[in-house]
Amino acid sequence: MSFNTFGKLFRFTTWGESHGIAIGCIVDGCPPNIQINEKDIQIELNKRKPGQSKYTSQRKEDDNVQILSGVFNGKTTGTPISMIIYNKDMRSRDYETIKNKFRPGHADYTYFMKYGIRDYRGGGRQSARETAARVAAGAIAKKVLEVKIGKKYKVVGAVTQIGILGCDTNNWDDKFITKNSLFCPDKSILKLWEKYLLSIRKAGSSCGAIIELRGKGIPVGLGAPIYSKLDMDFAAAMMSINAVKGVNIGSGMNSAQLTGEQSSDEISQKGKKTKFKSNNSGGILGGISSGQDIIVSFAVKPTSSIINSRKTIDKFGKNTSISVKGRHDPCVGIRAVPIGEAMMHCVLLDHYLMNVAQCKS
Amino acid sequence: MSFNTFGKLFRFTTWGESHGIAIGCIVDGCPPNIQINEKDIQIELNKRKPGQSKYTSQRKEDDNVQILSGVFNGKTTGTPISMIIYNKDMRSRDYETIKNKFRPGHADYTYFMKYGIRDYRGGGRQSARETAARVAAGAIAKKVLEVKIGKKYKVVGAVTQIGILGCDTNNWDDKFITKNSLFCPDKSILKLWEKYLLSIRKAGSSCGAIIELRGKGIPVGLGAPIYSKLDMDFAAAMMSINAVKGVNIGSGMNSAQLTGEQSSDEISQKGKKTKFKSNNSGGILGGISSGQDIIVSFAVKPTSSIINSRKTIDKFGKNTSISVKGRHDPCVGIRAVPIGEAMMHCVLLDHYLMNVAQCKS
Amino acid sequence: MSFNTFGKLFRFTTWGESHGIAIGCIVDGCPPNIQINEKDIQIELNKRKPGQSKYTSQRKEDDNVQILSGVFNGKTTGTPISMIIYNKDMRSRDYETIKNKFRPGHADYTYFMKYGIRDYRGGGRQSARETAARVAAGAIAKKVLEVKIGKKYKVVGAVTQIGILGCDTNNWDDKFITKNSLFCPDKSILKLWEKYLLSIRKAGSSCGAIIELRGKGIPVGLGAPIYSKLDMDFAAAMMSINAVKGVNIGSGMNSAQLTGEQSSDEISQKGKKTKFKSNNSGGILGGISSGQDIIVSFAVKPTSSIINSRKTIDKFGKNTSISVKGRHDPCVGIRAVPIGEAMMHCVLLDHYLMNVAQCKS
Amino acid sequence: MSFNTFGKLFRFTTWGESHGIAIGCIVDGCPPNIQINEKDIQIELNKRKPGQSKYTSQRKEDDNVQILSGVFNGKTTGTPISMIIYNKDMRSRDYETIKNKFRPGHADYTYFMKYGIRDYRGGGRQSARETAARVAAGAIAKKVLEVKIGKKYKVVGAVTQIGILGCDTNNWDDKFITKNSLFCPDKSILKLWEKYLLSIRKAGSSCGAIIELRGKGIPVGLGAPIYSKLDMDFAAAMMSINAVKGVNIGSGMNSAQLTGEQSSDEISQKGKKTKFKSNNSGGILGGISSGQDIIVSFAVKPTSSIINSRKTIDKFGKNTSISVKGRHDPCVGIRAVPIGEAMMHCVLLDHYLMNVAQCKS
Repeated sequence: MSFNTFGKLFRFTTWGESHGIAIGCIVDGCPPNIQINEKDIQIELNKRKPGQSKYTSQRKEDDNVQILSGVFNGKTTGTPISMIIYNKDMRSRDYETIKNKFRPGHADYTYFMKYGIRDYRGGGRQSARETAARVAAGAIAKKVLEVKIGKKYKVVGAVTQIGILGCDTNNWDDKFITKNSLFCPDKSILKLWEKYLLSIRKAGSSCGAIIELRGKGIPVGLGAPIYSKLDMDFAAAMMSINAVKGVNIGSGMNSAQLTGEQSSDEISQKGKKTKFKSNNSGGILGGISSGQDIIVSFAVKPTSSIINSRKTIDKFGKNTSISVKGRHDPCVGIRAVPIGEAMMHCVLLDHYLMNVAQCKS
Repeated sequence: MSFNTFGKLFRFTTWGESHGIAIGCIVDGCPPNIQINEKDIQIELNKRKPGQSKYTSQRKEDDNVQILSGVFNGKTTGTPISMIIYNKDMRSRDYETIKNKFRPGHADYTYFMKYGIRDYRGGGRQSARETAARVAAGAIAKKVLEVKIGKKYKVVGAVTQIGILGCDTNNWDDKFITKNSLFCPDKSILKLWEKYLLSIRKAGSSCGAIIELRGKGIPVGLGAPIYSKLDMDFAAAMMSINAVKGVNIGSGMNSAQLTGEQSSDEISQKGKKTKFKSNNSGGILGGISSGQDIIVSFAVKPTSSIINSRKTIDKFGKNTSISVKGRHDPCVGIRAVPIGEAMMHCVLLDHYLMNVAQCKS
Repeated sequence: MSFNTFGKLFRFTTWGESHGIAIGCIVDGCPPNIQINEKDIQIELNKRKPGQSKYTSQRKEDDNVQILSGVFNGKTTGTPISMIIYNKDMRSRDYETIKNKFRPGHADYTYFMKYGIRDYRGGGRQSARETAARVAAGAIAKKVLEVKIGKKYKVVGAVTQIGILGCDTNNWDDKFITKNSLFCPDKSILKLWEKYLLSIRKAGSSCGAIIELRGKGIPVGLGAPIYSKLDMDFAAAMMSINAVKGVNIGSGMNSAQLTGEQSSDEISQKGKKTKFKSNNSGGILGGISSGQDIIVSFAVKPTSSIINSRKTIDKFGKNTSISVKGRHDPCVGIRAVPIGEAMMHCVLLDHYLMNVAQCKS
Repeated sequence: MSFNTFGKLFRFTTWGESHGIAIGCIVDGCPPNIQINEKDIQIELNKRKPGQSKYTSQRKEDDNVQILSGVFNGKTTGTPISMIIYNKDMRSRDYETIKNKFRPGHADYTYFMKYGIRDYRGGGRQSARETAARVAAGAIAKKVLEVKIGKKYKVVGAVTQIGILGCDTNNWDDKFITKNSLFCPDKSILKLWEKYLLSIRKAGSSCGAIIELRGKGIPVGLGAPIYSKLDMDFAAAMMSINAVKGVNIGSGMNSAQLTGEQSSDEISQKGKKTKFKSNNSGGILGGISSGQDIIVSFAVKPTSSIINSRKTIDKFGKNTSISVKGRHDPCVGIRAVPIGEAMMHCVLLDHYLMNVAQCKS
């Protein structure tokens, strides 16, 4: 059971509401003697935090993380690592209008119907603010894997499509991603995206996005059949992120259109190196990593909180309409990049530990 | 931890290899006093079994299931239900050629690298034969939900794309699906698909497919944030099926291209009924069922075992090539329909029980 | 996997070290719409906190709990409840002497050997201070069960033996327990225990204790064979408490000496009430509650931190001796009463929810 | 969740009823490349099987185990190992008398009240016959540990008390245990026990027993705080065995009577060896193995099925009496020795793998 816990051997449990006192998480199962400090985590959190550009929410959050346990003299001790991030810029008045109305496309209706009660302030638990806690957990997983696998280990995420505008992934440039606020990997499209986003925002609307994650330096053998497949866990991990509606591994949904010859990646050996001619599998065969780059992509639907008026009902069952005026991202997908990266780190570390337990003991 | 177990409250554990003595599963957590017999399960198994048409594998398997425990006087007792299906038509000689070679696109390489040993006969544990066991588990979940929710509860799956040929889902006809061996929901495309498949087979090749599942009559409130989201569990469930590379919920990957107005389904009230104007969410908001139809689709890559020769390596690290001549499906996706349905039943029952525990106690 | 998590449907995860910034826990799976506030939890914490009498540790801790999430307008929302208790009276200097030495009977040696690192301040994670977090979780479980089962539901714990001095459980008086600082249920022995404890403390030594828990008003049917037996979970729960070395259900270890006639409790019916002649089973048959009072007892070994000098080694493998002068309980067992009660509440709620899911849905 | 599953990384799931077609289990998480065959398992099963002496049930069961999956060419493959044991000597007529009556001390009443249905034949799922399945799982765990730790690894169990007659554990003789059908470790008391048992049987009664398990050659560092303590898992494991009512680790319940000086085992170093002066801890400190012998004991209550008439009720709520005439053990505790050993193997392997994952990766 795991309502708010993710992972098996490396596990994190998140808690907290958008407009409560704080949010946070507990990381359990972290190996001991790993150097970790708050800066390592803050770097990742800063990538995700709002208020950094005109393309994301204007909510100002420092997202300062504090480690409360599990680290002693700068090293993990093998005991649970508790982290807390206090909420600061909470304008609860912004949310009075949605107190009794259900925003279309949001979880307002389903939460209320399920629990009979909901913390409506800023979406409460359903808010994407929860994802800050997992970015913190992912920062720890990353550190551990860098120690266990080595510096060749790397996960890079980018936005590959915004609304109707896909980038050219052949132009993918790791460094460029870090230099623009849209996590765009393709220099040639950035300007267009920026224009597009501003027009979307101006129009009181929003748009979706596709994020692609690339894991590098991952050893062969991670993942376990049948119900702990690596791709199964990636699918679950990404689908757990707010607003995600689709997940692809390698060729993903496009696999349907391929022939067997196109789809199955030919193998060859060069000295001690096993090579694959293509990577339709996304680096995973039978649920187990093949040693190729791991490629996972996912779609984030458009922000549901938009200014344009939409028909809906209120909690008393009356028809009404709603226009949401808060400080929302025109494209929530953008900030999903560090979240996706964090989830990939966590899944990989979990499977790394499982593989050690079953096959390297 | 759950290498071979799926589910939380309603759980099944599968076991068995393609060419071992038998395969089977244990269903744990099934409510008591549900009428169940082998026929109920056999009906579902028969949908999946090979050798039924020229479009699927010619392996002949009766797939006769036997219940070994957990049912007394025709009713479940609340104790584990063990089911066994003996393997019959095992031509192990077919697989001598792949004993030492790794089939591209298959898990041969990764299993061997992970475990240092593999049962190569028919793919061993990695074979899609494992899915028969989950179809059996799904048959039980279906029976339970029909009792708990009532006869309005229904899951229908169909193939909506074969290779490059998508059907028109506006023509979806539940009854037609049961009358053709391709699980095609659109009468207008069936003939074309049949021709296409025969040509693919003749060419010694294979093709992919997309399967769509529709769940009806599902109450609002199933699913639980954050890491037991209903769509997260569907994504995991479908991605656990052999050869699946992508999963969509509702508008899925296409959500990226929508605007907020298009994507978020407007809500209205008519008397006691809550209605949604569209169903881009696939019946799930914030990980919780909204009462709409649940729509999940997934892509199955082309069969990797094809006659056409492909480059690969053997277990000694030598370059070689392979042509797989066994009795393989030209499009494994077709038989994935009852498997997907089974997984949907299992996920829904699991969440049904969880919801009862947390919110209806 | 559950290094720091307890429970299945009602789960809590604890974190924190004795001399870190704070300790705390997250409660997950709590049903919604239960009235809860910090006072409800504080009452239980106050029973456990140190510095309340001359028979327990003189460490002064307010143990003020703060709820950080999961409660909105005074009611649970079904989302995780995060609670924090800041550490205050930390005299880390007290522990400099044990920085490099392993206290006999403590986990110093095993933690160091396992993890290669340990937070030695106050025992770090191994300190009984962790138990405050579970008392907080137990307070919530108690509230939920009082709502779900009703006010007849009650768990009462008491100390029934201190060192060599057992009380007469026939004199058990619920009210008296709350009126003395030793949780003594038998007025006739209290004075003797107090004298004994003072002499033990004066002698620089310590002693063990036995705690008995009585659960009342528990419905028949809680617990689940085979590996979720109610008594199995009680045994695990109690053995997870620091310094506990033995657990009995009903007649417990004494069952060995009984005959079948003595041991098996005869059953009779009076109107609608099922009665049992005796209660050797401790209210549990085949792992399922019978409707009788549930009786669980456990032994707590003497405090290992004593003033009297003991032989040991240091972390460099050198023989040495140790005399521990901190503010230790002469009998840690006494403060185990509210901890045992908390664990019983948690186990019962967990099984209550499981039973609802499987058998009442 | 784990109604019928035990373990975390090394897991087994049992199924089957006393008088169904068969019983069995699935072992999941077993490391690959371990040599295992049916004989290895049969040896352990033979220790447990009934009908071997006049002191145990006369039911004749070959208890022949068959491995259905997970082993290829004599070695484990890392995939689930399914094992089946067919039921043979089922005299269901023996149980007609108990069809509607609840045997005092048995789970008849609680199963019926919980599930509303029960397979009364031979106790159905509640029968100790289920334990054969876990002995099979334990045999595999034993093999794995002998490979991983080496031949110094050993678990030996014995009966140390039958009814009111305790043996002298100072006379413990490993070899003698294997030479008598009562698993008696003390030659001096065997005759007396035999006489006692015959008199108990003759009197139509039954008696309880205490079993002690000794684990040797176990490395320091197994076990994990807080809720995966090694002793916690032992307590759970033993309490999951039918009729067990109490569990002790090391000095167990007697710890209450000790002083701190007596209880905490002094430590010393001799060259590279760490020594303990005594073993009150039972080889476990803070939930982690210390490298000493692990000592676990547990009490088994008397067989509840006795010939002597006992008052009870039937399923219609009428008062009645019952005399159970089947082929029951006068002291079920005796056959609990191989079961306890099996559970100890399983817990140790589980923790061995967990320790590797967290601390040796």
